[in-house]
Amino acid sequence: MNSEKLKIAVLGGTGNIGEGMVLRLALQNLMPEGMKNEIIIGSRSLEAANEAAEKALSELENCGFDTSSIKIIGMSNFEAAKASEIVILTIRFDHILPLLKEIRETLENKVLISPVVPMVKEGSLMAYRPPVEGSAALAIQKNVPESTRVVAAFHNIPAGKLKDVVKCKAVHDALVCSDDAEAKKLVMELTRHMGCLKPLDGGPLKQASTMESLTPLMINLAKLNGLKDLGINFS
Amino acid sequence: MNSEKLKIAVLGGTGNIGEGMVLRLALQNLMPEGMKNEIIIGSRSLEAANEAAEKALSELENCGFDTSSIKIIGMSNFEAAKASEIVILTIRFDHILPLLKEIRETLENKVLISPVVPMVKEGSLMAYRPPVEGSAALAIQKNVPESTRVVAAFHNIPAGKLKDVVKCKAVHDALVCSDDAEAKKLVMELTRHMGCLKPLDGGPLKQASTMESLTPLMINLAKLNGLKDLGINFS
Repeated sequence: MNSEKLKIAVLGGTGNIGEGMVLRLALQNLMPEGMKNEIIIGSRSLEAANEAAEKALSELENCGFDTSSIKIIGMSNFEAAKASEIVILTIRFDHILPLLKEIRETLENKVLISPVVPMVKEGSLMAYRPPVEGSAALAIQKNVPESTRVVAAFHNIPAGKLKDVVKCKAVHDALVCSDDAEAKKLVMELTRHMGCLKPLDGGPLKQASTMESLTPLMINLAKLNGLKDLGINFS
Repeated sequence: MNSEKLKIAVLGGTGNIGEGMVLRLALQNLMPEGMKNEIIIGSRSLEAANEAAEKALSELENCGFDTSSIKIIGMSNFEAAKASEIVILTIRFDHILPLLKEIRETLENKVLISPVVPMVKEGSLMAYRPPVEGSAALAIQKNVPESTRVVAAFHNIPAGKLKDVVKCKAVHDALVCSDDAEAKKLVMELTRHMGCLKPLDGGPLKQASTMESLTPLMINLAKLNGLKDLGINFS
């Protein structure tokens, strides 16, 4: 691998948000100011990871992009995290702690991005259900090495708009929280070139609970008010 | 008082948000589709309430509006609540429970609007500090008669923009939560004619915790990102 390129693992990159994230990250390689990267999709199944990588590449090709400078490969979650400098956890909260146990040793000094939202269905609406630590982000921080720099980001981004890389009319605000200033700056930079997001400094990691709780609220707003794929803007 | 007009008490109407709320409500009397109302500003001090009422009227006159159809008067909190059909609590959370004890008997069958946000300063940032009930709205509901219909609304509205009744460029989303469908509909209708707000159904009252926690987040976003008087939009 080219050492000048940022190696980014998208664990659970076979899911809905993971898929959009992979496409948006890959496209940065075609942008003069984008953050050049190599993407490693992680999954419990190597086969599923490889399939997701191939699917992402062919989607970009189908949109007419030149993918010769784009590298997307599949690995197991453990190998993907081990090979990367940034690890993104696009995984359901109830699978997070077992996964962190499995990959813990690979996370020393890494930037770990959590877009994780613990929520449950209550009747016809969604409800935020944070762990005792107060948020998924704080629970994650408690279960990784001290040198791991946890950043909370990408919670309030509509998957549908993220995946639609060609039509990109709306620019939504994207809040980024971390206790590590350098890691926060890196993730804000990564966000700035996602094509449809404007990063905002959301403050320290403990603010993540509000960002997380916004996701079920926005799902409910869409449902209750006949809207779709909601993003958020502060102005 | 004219019985066709909605009587609205703004308790704590001498404060920042209360002031903007009074102006926006009063202006509905000049709008063909606005909800015609009489406003009673409540305060611990009758003198302060009367002064706030006079100040609001003269501000509207100074802006050139014809105030002959507008009625804004001052009363004690108790009398204001007693005389009204809708009661708005624009008061700091730490004063809310003693006030509710004082005015409890006046609240039977009333619509009670809570824009209350329990928050504290932590270092240079604000932090949400909800009571054990989970939110100010739920704590309020626990401390009023069963017939009182609590509605959570007006948390995420920049006071500066609310008070500026003449310049009104931005239209922000305003979430409204309640367990009472009729009361929620009434408050959404009231919101629709505030001049700069678009009401969104936020679901049941327990969703208020997210709305409340957004306020300190938005204050922090403004501070951390060099912004001012932030509103929120979902799209």
